[in-house]
Amino acid sequence: MTQLQQAKAGRITPEMRRVARAEGVSPQHIRDKIAQGHLIIPWNLRRKASKVFGIGEGLRTKVNANIGTSKDYADVKVELEKLRAAEEAGADTVMDLSTGGDISATRARIIAESSLPIGTVPIYEAAVQAATRKHSIRDMTAASILGAVRHHCEDGVDFVTVHCGVTRRVVEEMRRSKRVCGIVSRGGTFLAEWMTIHKRENPLYEHFNELLAMAAEHDVTLSLGDGMRPGALADAFDRPQVHELEVLAELFERAYAAGVQVMIEGPGHVPMNQIEAQVRLQKAMCHGAPFYVLGPLVTDIAPGYDHITAAIGGAIAAAAGADFLCYVTPSEHLGLPKPDDVREGVIAARIAGHAADLAKGIKGAWEWDKSFSALRRQRDWKGQLSRCIDPVRARQFRDKARPHDDDVCSMCGEYCVFKLANGKRKRG
Amino acid sequence: MTQLQQAKAGRITPEMRRVARAEGVSPQHIRDKIAQGHLIIPWNLRRKASKVFGIGEGLRTKVNANIGTSKDYADVKVELEKLRAAEEAGADTVMDLSTGGDISATRARIIAESSLPIGTVPIYEAAVQAATRKHSIRDMTAASILGAVRHHCEDGVDFVTVHCGVTRRVVEEMRRSKRVCGIVSRGGTFLAEWMTIHKRENPLYEHFNELLAMAAEHDVTLSLGDGMRPGALADAFDRPQVHELEVLAELFERAYAAGVQVMIEGPGHVPMNQIEAQVRLQKAMCHGAPFYVLGPLVTDIAPGYDHITAAIGGAIAAAAGADFLCYVTPSEHLGLPKPDDVREGVIAARIAGHAADLAKGIKGAWEWDKSFSALRRQRDWKGQLSRCIDPVRARQFRDKARPHDDDVCSMCGEYCVFKLANGKRKRG
Repeated sequence: MTQLQQAKAGRITPEMRRVARAEGVSPQHIRDKIAQGHLIIPWNLRRKASKVFGIGEGLRTKVNANIGTSKDYADVKVELEKLRAAEEAGADTVMDLSTGGDISATRARIIAESSLPIGTVPIYEAAVQAATRKHSIRDMTAASILGAVRHHCEDGVDFVTVHCGVTRRVVEEMRRSKRVCGIVSRGGTFLAEWMTIHKRENPLYEHFNELLAMAAEHDVTLSLGDGMRPGALADAFDRPQVHELEVLAELFERAYAAGVQVMIEGPGHVPMNQIEAQVRLQKAMCHGAPFYVLGPLVTDIAPGYDHITAAIGGAIAAAAGADFLCYVTPSEHLGLPKPDDVREGVIAARIAGHAADLAKGIKGAWEWDKSFSALRRQRDWKGQLSRCIDPVRARQFRDKARPHDDDVCSMCGEYCVFKLANGKRKRG
Repeated sequence: MTQLQQAKAGRITPEMRRVARAEGVSPQHIRDKIAQGHLIIPWNLRRKASKVFGIGEGLRTKVNANIGTSKDYADVKVELEKLRAAEEAGADTVMDLSTGGDISATRARIIAESSLPIGTVPIYEAAVQAATRKHSIRDMTAASILGAVRHHCEDGVDFVTVHCGVTRRVVEEMRRSKRVCGIVSRGGTFLAEWMTIHKRENPLYEHFNELLAMAAEHDVTLSLGDGMRPGALADAFDRPQVHELEVLAELFERAYAAGVQVMIEGPGHVPMNQIEAQVRLQKAMCHGAPFYVLGPLVTDIAPGYDHITAAIGGAIAAAAGADFLCYVTPSEHLGLPKPDDVREGVIAARIAGHAADLAKGIKGAWEWDKSFSALRRQRDWKGQLSRCIDPVRARQFRDKARPHDDDVCSMCGEYCVFKLANGKRKRG
C-alpha cells in the first residue's frame, strides 16, 4: 500500500514517524496531511532509500539537485561526484536527468550510491532511445513512453516527472500563442513534437490510469510536470501555462482518488510580482497539493548567476507556499553543470528555502538564526564556522582575508562593533 | 545652489537633463521629483564627477559598492583595484569606508580616479584619528566629528552617511532592549559609546544646522544613517530601530526645508515577511524620501553567501519601493572583501535591482529581458554572451563545459528545445 492509502486508512507508517521526528511535529499530523493530499513522502517500496523526507504544507522547504549526463559529457564517475557534492551540500533529493551514454546503467549507479530519494524524467530515456536506436525522437511510441516509466518505477526511482498535462488542446493553445521562448521543457518539447507529427493525444494523459497503476504498485510519487512552463519572463502566466495547470489539477484529483502520491511542478521564468499569484493559483486549483518549482528565475538576463536569480524567486515562491525547490546552478543556460556548480546551486536553493521558512515560521528555522547571531555577537568564530550553512566556504573566506587579531575579522579589526561594545568577551 | 534649491525654484539643471536622458523620462519630471524630495542627484559641486545618477522614485534601482582599507589591509593599490572592479561590474556609486592606513590620502586617490559618485562615512575618520593620535575613539570631540564631515565635503565627496538619528533617547531605548546583536553599525557604535561616556547628545543631531550648511555649500547629499539597523533577524523592527526612523523623518523635513538633498538609510538583517513593511513605513514616515538599504539580509546563517541573502532581500525591498541598494559581498561577516568579492557583490545587487525594476515596470527593464530571451530562442550565442549582465562570467561558464556542436549548449546538446522546435535556425 502507498503512504497515501495507509494515511487514508488512518495508519501511521514508520516513514511518517521518521518525517514527524525530523520536522518536530506529531506523526498524526503528518498522517493527516498526507491523507489530505497536502504532503508526500517520496520513497519507492522496492528501493527504500536510507533518507526519507516529507514534502508539503507546514514542513521545511526541501531542495532538489539535478544531475545527469548529456551527450557531450557522459562520464558516470563525474555524475557520482555530482551526487556526492549534492549530498554534502545538503540537498534533500536528487534527480538524474541523464540523456547521454548508457542512461540505464548511470541511473542504476546513482540509485545504488545515493542515500537520498531519487527522481527521474523517464521520457528522456524513451526519446534518446528512439533517437539513437531508431531514427529520431519522433520514433517513440506510446508503448515505449509508458515502458520507460515502468522501468524507472521498477528500478527503484522514488519520484518521476511525467508531463501528463501536455494535451493536444494545450499544444494547440501553445502554437497559437506569441511566446518569446515557446516550450522550454525538454519533456514537453519531446511530447509536443511527437503529438504534432503523429496527430495523437499525449500517451501520458491518455493512459493515465496505467501510470497510476505503476505508481501505486511501488509507491512512486508522480510529479506532474509543467511542459508549458514559461522560459522567458514575457511568457509567464499565459494561457498555455494556465490551461495546462487546469489539466494537472484534474489529474491530481484522479491520482489522489487512486491513492497515488502526487505533486505539481511549476515555473520557470516569472517576474517577481507574479510569483505569489502563481503559487496561490496552484494551491487553490490543485487542492493544496505540494508544489515543486524550478526557480522561479526573476530575470532572463543573468546567465552565469542563475543560482542567484533562482534564489530570489525560490525564496518568494516558498514564502508564498511552494514546498519544494528545484535548484538552478550558475551553469544554467550555458552548459552541463560541474560538481562545483552543483554545490553552489544546492546552497543557494537552501538559503532561499531557509529564508522562506523563517518567513513562514517553520519549526526550528528561527532558532537557528537566533542562536547563530548570538555566536556572532560573542565573536565565537569556532561556533560560527561550524554552524553556518556552509562551513567549508566560510572558512575559505576567513582564511583569504585573515585578521591580525583572530578575535575579530579583517573588515573592522579593532573597530569591531561587538568588541567595542563588550571588549572583554572572547570565545572560540 | 543645490539641485533641490534649483528644482524648487523651477529650474532644470544640466544634471537633471543627464539623469532624464539616462532614465528615459522628461527633465521636467526629474525636476518635479527632486522638488518633492523624492529624488536626489548626488554630485558635489566642487568635484563634478563624470558620471551622474538620479536615485529615487520611478528610476532604475541603483547599486552602491563599499570599498576601503582596514587596519589589517591598508594598501591603496588594492583599493583602486576594487574601485575598478566595482566600475567594471556596473556599480552606480562607490563608498570609501577606509579605516586603515592614511585615510585622507586613500580618499583623495579614490575620488581622483573614480568616474562614479563617491560616498563616505566621515565619523570613521574622526574615530580612527582619536584612537591613533590620542588614546581611544572616546577622545573624539564634537568639533572633530563635525570637522571630519567638513573635510569630506571639501574633498569633493558626493554623499556622506551621518548617523544623526542616534540620539540619547534612542541609545537609552537600545540599552533597555533585549537585542541579540545590539548595535552593528560602526558609526552608530562609535557615537553611542562616545555619548554614553561623555553623557552628551549626539553632535550630529545637536549641530544638525551646521551639517546642513556644509552640505548646502557644495551640494553634498546627506545620507541619514541608521545606527540602530538590526544586525540579526530577531532584532528587526524593534523599538530602537523604529524610534530612530522617527528621528530621521524629522531631520529629513529640516534638510528638505533647507534645500539640502537627503536620503534615508535602512536595514540590515530583516526576515522576508517584514521587508515590504519596512519600506512602506520609511516611505510613509519620511514623505517619500529616497531609501538606501544595506541588504536586507534575509537570514543570519549564511556567511560566505551574503551576496545571495542580500540579493533576495534587496530585490524584495526594491520591488516594494527602495531606491538604492548597498551591495553585500560574499566576504561579509568574514573579512575585508577582495576585488573578486567586489565584482560578485555588485553583480548580485544589480540582479536584485533589475528583478525589482521588472516588477515595478521601470523603463527599459522589460525590453532588456524580452530582447535577450529572443536571442536565447534563436541560439544567438554571440548576442547572449555580449548582452547578458556579465559577459565575462557567462563566457567562462560556456568555455568550462563546451558543447560538441557550438549551435547549442552542453546541457541538452542535440536535444536543445529551441533546436528541436526550429532546427534550421542558427545565428552567431
